[in-house]
Amino acid sequence: MRTVRVGLIGLGTVGSGVVDILRRHRADFVTRAGVDIELTRFADRNEARFKELGLPAEACTTDAADVLGDPDVDVVIELIGGTGIARDVVLGALSAGKSVVTANKALMATHGREVMDAADTHGVDILFEAAVGGGIPIIGPLKHSLVSNEITAVYGIVNGTTNYMLTRMAEDGLDYDAALAEAQERGFAEADPTADVDGLDAAAKIAILSSIAFNSRVTFAQVPVEGIRSLSPEDISYAAEMGYTIKLIAIARRAEGGIDVRVHPTMIREEHPLAKVSGVYNAIYVVGDSVGETMFFGEGAGSLPAASAVVGDVIEVARHIQRGCLALVGCTCHEELAVRDLGELETEYYVRLLVRDEPGVLAAVASIFGEHGVSIASVIQKRALVAGAEIVYATHRASERAVREALAEIDSLAVVDVVESVIRVEEL
Amino acid sequence: MRTVRVGLIGLGTVGSGVVDILRRHRADFVTRAGVDIELTRFADRNEARFKELGLPAEACTTDAADVLGDPDVDVVIELIGGTGIARDVVLGALSAGKSVVTANKALMATHGREVMDAADTHGVDILFEAAVGGGIPIIGPLKHSLVSNEITAVYGIVNGTTNYMLTRMAEDGLDYDAALAEAQERGFAEADPTADVDGLDAAAKIAILSSIAFNSRVTFAQVPVEGIRSLSPEDISYAAEMGYTIKLIAIARRAEGGIDVRVHPTMIREEHPLAKVSGVYNAIYVVGDSVGETMFFGEGAGSLPAASAVVGDVIEVARHIQRGCLALVGCTCHEELAVRDLGELETEYYVRLLVRDEPGVLAAVASIFGEHGVSIASVIQKRALVAGAEIVYATHRASERAVREALAEIDSLAVVDVVESVIRVEEL
Repeated sequence: MRTVRVGLIGLGTVGSGVVDILRRHRADFVTRAGVDIELTRFADRNEARFKELGLPAEACTTDAADVLGDPDVDVVIELIGGTGIARDVVLGALSAGKSVVTANKALMATHGREVMDAADTHGVDILFEAAVGGGIPIIGPLKHSLVSNEITAVYGIVNGTTNYMLTRMAEDGLDYDAALAEAQERGFAEADPTADVDGLDAAAKIAILSSIAFNSRVTFAQVPVEGIRSLSPEDISYAAEMGYTIKLIAIARRAEGGIDVRVHPTMIREEHPLAKVSGVYNAIYVVGDSVGETMFFGEGAGSLPAASAVVGDVIEVARHIQRGCLALVGCTCHEELAVRDLGELETEYYVRLLVRDEPGVLAAVASIFGEHGVSIASVIQKRALVAGAEIVYATHRASERAVREALAEIDSLAVVDVVESVIRVEEL
Repeated sequence: MRTVRVGLIGLGTVGSGVVDILRRHRADFVTRAGVDIELTRFADRNEARFKELGLPAEACTTDAADVLGDPDVDVVIELIGGTGIARDVVLGALSAGKSVVTANKALMATHGREVMDAADTHGVDILFEAAVGGGIPIIGPLKHSLVSNEITAVYGIVNGTTNYMLTRMAEDGLDYDAALAEAQERGFAEADPTADVDGLDAAAKIAILSSIAFNSRVTFAQVPVEGIRSLSPEDISYAAEMGYTIKLIAIARRAEGGIDVRVHPTMIREEHPLAKVSGVYNAIYVVGDSVGETMFFGEGAGSLPAASAVVGDVIEVARHIQRGCLALVGCTCHEELAVRDLGELETEYYVRLLVRDEPGVLAAVASIFGEHGVSIASVIQKRALVAGAEIVYATHRASERAVREALAEIDSLAVVDVVESVIRVEEL
């Protein structure tokens, strides 16, 4: 058995988890998986981390290039994150003939093709299970066990921060600000929560999942995204009353003429398995033509769960190195499906309006919906407000474009104060 | 690209699904996975199936030996089932240097070591994702993405028939007989339901899962098993009242001095993700030291879901054949952990007694539990019966042996008519 030598670049949360797992289990991996994996080089801009993690000084460097240039390093783990230096590091490692394991969702969602092509050119592996769903096996299953399927849809709760916040809002009536403050206090949200609450993190992940599920490259920039900032307790309680739960769902679905990909707060039936995924947990629901409906559930973030996936990938690469079969499964994007414009979407909608309490409001709104071919399934008029009323509409299946056009007109009616919220309703 | 030639032995439910998938997707697999897979030989004892499936007569045989002896066949799919002919077929194929894909849980749970050793000796693959959880990827994830973990526990709802019945009993108050009759009517239970309702099917599956999860061979014969025949609507409704759901759970857990493996009706907290798995769905809950808690959910049976896993395995083997790296991951049972006796188990217990309505009953029972060191968490005495009363005990954590000994004594008390039910309660 040869020892597979690994250079670890980026010693933050996930990196320290990787060090921890290999310290505890290196000997186990020899018996359990037949591979001997040694972390031989470490790079981080922050020198203090070397000491914190108790790493041998001679193995540590602040310059990633030292790791890429080390001929003894077989595999590079990239945990820098982002699309700047990380891209150079990954491409550099691949050109040096080293396989790469990364947890970098932004890189894979933005430069996935470039990176996969480089791995292909150099005949090495690039694995990135940790980029989506933390420790949850999802990329492996899609590329292996489920490869026999034509995947028709992927629905993911892939951001633990927002799922925690939505759970607190739904179960305990917190508003957005209180939920965010609590998530930050408990370490589930960053000081700047933008990437999470605006759905950007989820968008990168669904870009990656769609690329694999549909064998057709989808990039981060192609994913329309809407976060949870404007969700109000009222919408959540109306949803509950109607039998729905609001989740931030990352959706990818085959549709006529291409695929629909998007991230937005979504009302789903409270009986659906995804509706029951609470707190910081993640889950990815995959529908295939043969397998039917499957779901993969677990911890979507955190040091050890993500490190679990990273080390799993490293073991896989080590097996390949040992057996001389690197690049066994490379890029699988062999098709060129169009990512449809969001306007082409057809689904159901929940719309909440604040209106003047005047006669003719319902008729005026109904007539505009009608003109745009948007058919109404139900209307709830419930709260009498100081200066008016609140009306909630649930539409039948309608086109996004038609709904948006209708709402623009409705918004401009003198009797309508504001279109307070529009939430897509999905029968998954 | 070379064409990988596959012989399919057993043309029942799953076999016809395999034929169907390869008919629809052979060309897709070429682009999607880079492998060309051709079903070239078919064997079944029932000749009528050849015609039903529209297979070319010259490719069909009633003698499996014809397939094993065909030098053009690279891979054999064994879908005969059972441990008789199937074992000969699998061992025959492996000795002939052909890789094998099987859905045969009984074979793998009983002769797993023999079969894995034979594959190892001949340097070929044996894959069996479909043996557990139908189309749900679980064996692949355990051997790959999760290999970095020390798995501490696996909890599975791995039998759809009994889960369907328990769901109907819990949600609609059906008794066992009515639930079984309905399951049979809907095609979810066989005319002879023994393997399902007595937990044998689940026992084979947890033997396989434990072997992989703990890297230590566990066989079917080592799994203590208790089915659902004696479950009554009373127990289900008491469970609900106490915040529990009763599921047939296949359990494998690391414990002091070895591993606990067992299948029995189990009370689990109604908030646990497994409690929410209803109907014919399956789910496998895996706890690892790094990944934390994960769950794999989907359809555990049926022609296409199981065939999805079989064809996924065939594609994997085809990739290996093409790249010359067969037997990349073989048997992983490198440890020899003891399977502990059920008596050594420590958990909580639910006990329901029918007693005479006489003074001193509670005291007598309490005193026997006390003598055996079984501490009682709660007592419910609720229903006054014609000639007595019904008492429900929930114990604190206690040893199985102590509980059994206490109950034998309690049962022999003159004031106790019968120990009506004993159900283990697990805090998963």
